Amino acid sequence: MFLKNCWYCAGWDYELSQGNNKFLARRLADEPVVLYRKRDGGVVAMEDRCPHRQAALSLGQKEGDSLRCMYHGMKFGPDGMCVEIPGQAKIPPTARVRTFPVVEKDNWIWVWMGDPAKADPNLICFAVGPGDPEWNIRTSKITVKANHRLEIANLMDLSHAHWIHRRTLGGTSAWVNEKVERTMTPRGVRNVVWFRSVPAPAFAQHLFPPDARFDLYIDFEVTLPCNFVIHFQVWTPGTATTGPSNGRMLLDSYSSQAVTPVDEDTCEYYFSWGSSKATDAPGLSDMLYEAVDDAFREDRVVLEAQHRNLKERPDGNLVNIVHDAGPEKMLRLLDRLLAEEAAEAAAPRARLRA
Amino acid sequence: MFLKNCWYCAGWDYELSQGNNKFLARRLADEPVVLYRKRDGGVVAMEDRCPHRQAALSLGQKEGDSLRCMYHGMKFGPDGMCVEIPGQAKIPPTARVRTFPVVEKDNWIWVWMGDPAKADPNLICFAVGPGDPEWNIRTSKITVKANHRLEIANLMDLSHAHWIHRRTLGGTSAWVNEKVERTMTPRGVRNVVWFRSVPAPAFAQHLFPPDARFDLYIDFEVTLPCNFVIHFQVWTPGTATTGPSNGRMLLDSYSSQAVTPVDEDTCEYYFSWGSSKATDAPGLSDMLYEAVDDAFREDRVVLEAQHRNLKERPDGNLVNIVHDAGPEKMLRLLDRLLAEEAAEAAAPRARLRA
Amino acid sequence: MFLKNCWYCAGWDYELSQGNNKFLARRLADEPVVLYRKRDGGVVAMEDRCPHRQAALSLGQKEGDSLRCMYHGMKFGPDGMCVEIPGQAKIPPTARVRTFPVVEKDNWIWVWMGDPAKADPNLICFAVGPGDPEWNIRTSKITVKANHRLEIANLMDLSHAHWIHRRTLGGTSAWVNEKVERTMTPRGVRNVVWFRSVPAPAFAQHLFPPDARFDLYIDFEVTLPCNFVIHFQVWTPGTATTGPSNGRMLLDSYSSQAVTPVDEDTCEYYFSWGSSKATDAPGLSDMLYEAVDDAFREDRVVLEAQHRNLKERPDGNLVNIVHDAGPEKMLRLLDRLLAEEAAEAAAPRARLRA
Repeated sequence: MFLKNCWYCAGWDYELSQGNNKFLARRLADEPVVLYRKRDGGVVAMEDRCPHRQAALSLGQKEGDSLRCMYHGMKFGPDGMCVEIPGQAKIPPTARVRTFPVVEKDNWIWVWMGDPAKADPNLICFAVGPGDPEWNIRTSKITVKANHRLEIANLMDLSHAHWIHRRTLGGTSAWVNEKVERTMTPRGVRNVVWFRSVPAPAFAQHLFPPDARFDLYIDFEVTLPCNFVIHFQVWTPGTATTGPSNGRMLLDSYSSQAVTPVDEDTCEYYFSWGSSKATDAPGLSDMLYEAVDDAFREDRVVLEAQHRNLKERPDGNLVNIVHDAGPEKMLRLLDRLLAEEAAEAAAPRARLRA
Repeated sequence: MFLKNCWYCAGWDYELSQGNNKFLARRLADEPVVLYRKRDGGVVAMEDRCPHRQAALSLGQKEGDSLRCMYHGMKFGPDGMCVEIPGQAKIPPTARVRTFPVVEKDNWIWVWMGDPAKADPNLICFAVGPGDPEWNIRTSKITVKANHRLEIANLMDLSHAHWIHRRTLGGTSAWVNEKVERTMTPRGVRNVVWFRSVPAPAFAQHLFPPDARFDLYIDFEVTLPCNFVIHFQVWTPGTATTGPSNGRMLLDSYSSQAVTPVDEDTCEYYFSWGSSKATDAPGLSDMLYEAVDDAFREDRVVLEAQHRNLKERPDGNLVNIVHDAGPEKMLRLLDRLLAEEAAEAAAPRARLRA
Repeated sequence: MFLKNCWYCAGWDYELSQGNNKFLARRLADEPVVLYRKRDGGVVAMEDRCPHRQAALSLGQKEGDSLRCMYHGMKFGPDGMCVEIPGQAKIPPTARVRTFPVVEKDNWIWVWMGDPAKADPNLICFAVGPGDPEWNIRTSKITVKANHRLEIANLMDLSHAHWIHRRTLGGTSAWVNEKVERTMTPRGVRNVVWFRSVPAPAFAQHLFPPDARFDLYIDFEVTLPCNFVIHFQVWTPGTATTGPSNGRMLLDSYSSQAVTPVDEDTCEYYFSWGSSKATDAPGLSDMLYEAVDDAFREDRVVLEAQHRNLKERPDGNLVNIVHDAGPEKMLRLLDRLLAEEAAEAAAPRARLRA
């Protein structure tokens, strides 16, 4: 089950060139979607299914801003309307393809899978993209064979960094013990925490003497459906015990992450990490990028095994622990939004019956 | 659902040597079949399942014209009757394997999966085989992960050549625009069309100046279950506007194709192409063969994606277009024959009840 | 359906080192099990599923004799009880993992998947392990994509050696024709037979002149769930026509085999073969090992094809032959034990209703 009235990431903008055959064939929330770029730079998202005999439109060709299905040659405008049926003058009004609202923002392509009338660009989560002139950001993606709810739970509880990521992002038990300040946002939770006088993250410890200590600022927002943006700073250790460090800032960085459900068993994980140009140094942003790339492969192993176990025993009793508060908050919000969508979908039928 | 009272292609004759372990293990219309060649050259087709404990007979060995199952050594004659149970004198009459009528024709091996009493060799479609002394024919096969009905629809509408095969068999919009003359045959449709003064097919355009034009004769017969034979000629462009070209024939060729359903999701596509010895030239028939080999891989990509889409939404509304007339005619004929078989299968039970 | 009150082989002892991350993640009778070795050498077997959110414990780390789940850091003692929840003082009593009785014997690790109260080490089948000082034994395992009942039937009827193993273990029709003496054991059948004046097994015939003959002693016991131990001797041909050969013993060997059902479609086949030190010679035990390794790959091809056929037609009529007596005896014993377990499982509920 997937939220439909929301923005799902369908790719990085550089994945969609103006090439004649350049289509992205994605599966978003269990529906096949084809994306392509128009001459003016705009992006079109359509159901990847020809209304004639369900051929995949992503195997077609571009003609101007239109897409021609290359099985029998039917041509569709960027609004999904059929504009040509070769060998036939009359075009039936049913010859149309469903289209989806698309927005490009922060170098990400976002698609709205629900009611187009509700497609509010303000619901797109904040991010810092690779094109931002103030930041040096590197990007990638990996595929995870697990339900996106497991990703939400993973992202909402950073204590796992100390365990899963002990060789990459971890390196201090503050991940487990520091209390995180949480604030609800319209579709998510913002989480802020300072780690004071702790070792560098594991991926960077080789750069410093063993007794080097730092203050770390971690400010991450998780937004439904499954987006995660972390503002991460490293400071020399200060003396402040509450509020911002009074040391000196060494690194200012952003990692933006968007997890898109492909189907009930698969996610695409789009992610980036890099530092501000002011605090970058040769190889530094590259190292940050490599650290999350490594870390998400660590998560992948764990989440895929967890997913298989949960599929086998979906009704298994679960023991709750203190770190579940964050994940549960977010999953309950997701469940509430899903219930609202289901109610809205049922409503017109109710009216017809009344 | 598969037609049973029909001939399915199980392979090329050269695939069945006299080797001791040379068995073809095929799946025909969702049933496992083992084929082997007897000493007199005849071919045996049996269910690939030992009546003892269902071991695969295709893992056995030949002894004379018999097949010995190499799990427990039971030996079966070419009629399927068990002739030896090692260590046991008495052979129960149930120790027999179902056999299927087989005919070799045009270097193809044809198997009848239905009632043996109805196995009429006249129902085997016409073809020109690689052994025909008048023709230079090359052969191959590919596996397509799609239902055979999609192949029938594909073969009955050659307009797709202009789109899917734009880099191989296509090269002129006559594929879309020329009206095809159709004649029903007992189990199929014959289709005839002349393209006048058109460019060479895409796979051969590099051999001629850009303005070279030709008359093309296309005479193809599609026969159920899923066979396709095309008589394809290239002529210098003539002045005739109806009937045969009055140019000079440059190429006379035949491509014979047999698509066998393996199961609901898979077909084996056997095919050939080559020219008459009278019109052949060094490398010419090889080029024709390569062209269809390339083209069927183009079809495969499209049909497999279409198959996945249709499986996901089998009841999706479809928009019909002018080019569906041919495919629909053939699929309706298939449905009629399937209904007749189902009625015959139900009849004995009806009588028992009455 | 699997017997639960029985010992399943989970591996060879040398597969479980003291390494920090050395866990065996096995599936035994369709349940995920993680195994690890304690500091005192003992082995722990637990459900491979954290009670928190079902993460795989086999992705964890060892701490002393405890296992720490490396998703959120919960730590479990070797008795399955949670001993630490990072960041939380109170440990709920439901935070425990199911453990299974384990016994190491003959270098095999045996796990009891049923009621721990019934875990009787005397039910572990006799075997000769690679650590036995009197024998030179080599070991391995292969995975077979077939139900373990097919392995039971295979092992209970050695006539198949003449057919499947004609190039390895076979070499004489005595495998088919010699009558085997059978004695029931508490959970299996012991089978004894002498082959008199027969050729060497196929894998060894190249070592002798073509007319060399031997007496072979074959004494094999099959024990449920699916264990097989064969005492195999080669003698110079004697004149005795009943009872032991009165020739001279050339080879005294043991092959011990344990087939563990992974799920309904898969088995792990653990096996060994080697000769007594008294009768070994350079390369001899290695050759025996290679012979069974080759032979079990021959079985695998046949059993996997048979499994696919049986899955497709589980209710197919089967013809019984003389060699089925052994397999049927063993499968009926298995069915009786399964029925008893089912009855015991139902009993408490019956009492509650009364």
